[in-house]
Amino acid sequence: MSDFVLYNYFRSSTSYRARIALHLKNIPFEYRPVHLVRNGGEQFSAGYRKLNPSSEVPTLVHQGRAIGQSMAIVEYLDEIAPTPRLFPEDPYMKAKVRQFCEVINSGMHSYQNLKTLRYLQNELGVSEDKKMAWISHWLQAGFRSLENLLGRYSGTYCFGDSITAADVFLAPQVFSAHRFKVPMDEFRHCTEIARRCESLPAFQKAHPSRQPDYQP
Amino acid sequence: MSDFVLYNYFRSSTSYRARIALHLKNIPFEYRPVHLVRNGGEQFSAGYRKLNPSSEVPTLVHQGRAIGQSMAIVEYLDEIAPTPRLFPEDPYMKAKVRQFCEVINSGMHSYQNLKTLRYLQNELGVSEDKKMAWISHWLQAGFRSLENLLGRYSGTYCFGDSITAADVFLAPQVFSAHRFKVPMDEFRHCTEIARRCESLPAFQKAHPSRQPDYQP
Repeated sequence: MSDFVLYNYFRSSTSYRARIALHLKNIPFEYRPVHLVRNGGEQFSAGYRKLNPSSEVPTLVHQGRAIGQSMAIVEYLDEIAPTPRLFPEDPYMKAKVRQFCEVINSGMHSYQNLKTLRYLQNELGVSEDKKMAWISHWLQAGFRSLENLLGRYSGTYCFGDSITAADVFLAPQVFSAHRFKVPMDEFRHCTEIARRCESLPAFQKAHPSRQPDYQP
Repeated sequence: MSDFVLYNYFRSSTSYRARIALHLKNIPFEYRPVHLVRNGGEQFSAGYRKLNPSSEVPTLVHQGRAIGQSMAIVEYLDEIAPTPRLFPEDPYMKAKVRQFCEVINSGMHSYQNLKTLRYLQNELGVSEDKKMAWISHWLQAGFRSLENLLGRYSGTYCFGDSITAADVFLAPQVFSAHRFKVPMDEFRHCTEIARRCESLPAFQKAHPSRQPDYQP
C-alpha cells in the first residue's frame, strides 16, 4: 500500500496535472478512478464529497489526509518531495511560473470544464456550434497569453531548460485543446513544448490513454 | 516613490485581494487605476499588455518587474515580506489554505468575470435573468464547498484565529456575491467571517469604496 492515493479521472486535465507531478517525483501512488459521467457522476457520491467538498477531481490523499485543487496538490508535492523542483527558488521566477500556471488554472480551465459545458447546453440551450466557439474563444485567449510569456522565458521547456510546474500545466491544456479541435497554428511555443514534454517518461505514464479507467 | 506599483481596478475582486495582502503586510504602494470599461477597456492598451499579456488586473510591479495573477501576487508577497504570514508553515495546512483560495480563484471567479458575462450577453444572447441565475449557480456551488471547509477549519477567521490567504480571497468574493445579490443565507460561516475581516484596518483600506478610482 502506498502512502499516496490519487482520486482522479483519466481524461480530466486537472487530474492529468497531478499524475504528471507524481510521476516526475517518482512517487508511487494508488490510482482510484472517479468516473465523472457514470451513475450521474461518481464525484457527487457522499463518500467522495467527504474527501472533496467541491465534488471535483483530482483529490490527493497522503497519509489519510485529503487535498483538493490541482494547484494546491502540485505545490504540496513540491514541498514534501523537492526533487526535482517544480517551482524555481528565486521568488520572482517562482511568481512567474505561478502566473503561467494560473493563466491555465483560473483563466482557461473552467471554460472547458464538463460541468460548464453542460450548463451552457442544458440550462442555456446553447447549440453545439456555439459551444465549440465558446471553448475556442477562451482557450485561444489563454494560449495567446501563454505564448507571450513563453516568448520571454522558454528554452527547451516553458521556463528555460528544466521542467517546471508550468510544463505540468501546459501539456494537459494542449491535450485538451487538441481534443476540442481548437485551432492551434498561432501557438508554436505551446505546441512544441507540449510535444517535447510528451516524450518524457513521466508525462507518458500520466497520459490519459495509459490510465486504468481509459476509454477511447 | 514606492518600490511597489499596483495596477488595478477598484471593483475587481482579484484587485481587491492584492490590495488586502499589501495592506496586511504594511507595504506602501503606488495605486495605478486601470479602468476596465472606459475607452473600450484600458487593460487592452498596448502599454498595459506589456505588463500583463492576459490584459487582466491586477498586476503588481516590484522593482520594475511585473507579476500577474492574484494568487501569484499573494504568494510572492508572502515570500518577500513574511510578516504576518498568510500561508501556514505546515505543508498540509498550507495546502488546505491553497485549496480554499483556489475554490474561489479557479472555481468561482471566472463565472462572474466581466468578460464572461459580456460573452454570455453579447455572443450567446443570454437574458439578464438567466445571466443572474448563472452567477448564482456557480457562486452558490463554490460557497457550499467553502462552508464545508470552514466547518472544519474556521475559528475567528477561515483557518483558526489568525488571518490567512483564505480570508484575503474570501472577503472580496463575499463582497461580489452581495453586489450580484446572490442569496447568502445558507453560508453563515462565509458571511460572518467576511464581516469580521471587514472590520480590520487592512481590509477597510483595501475596500472598493475607498479607492481613488471608485465610482458608485
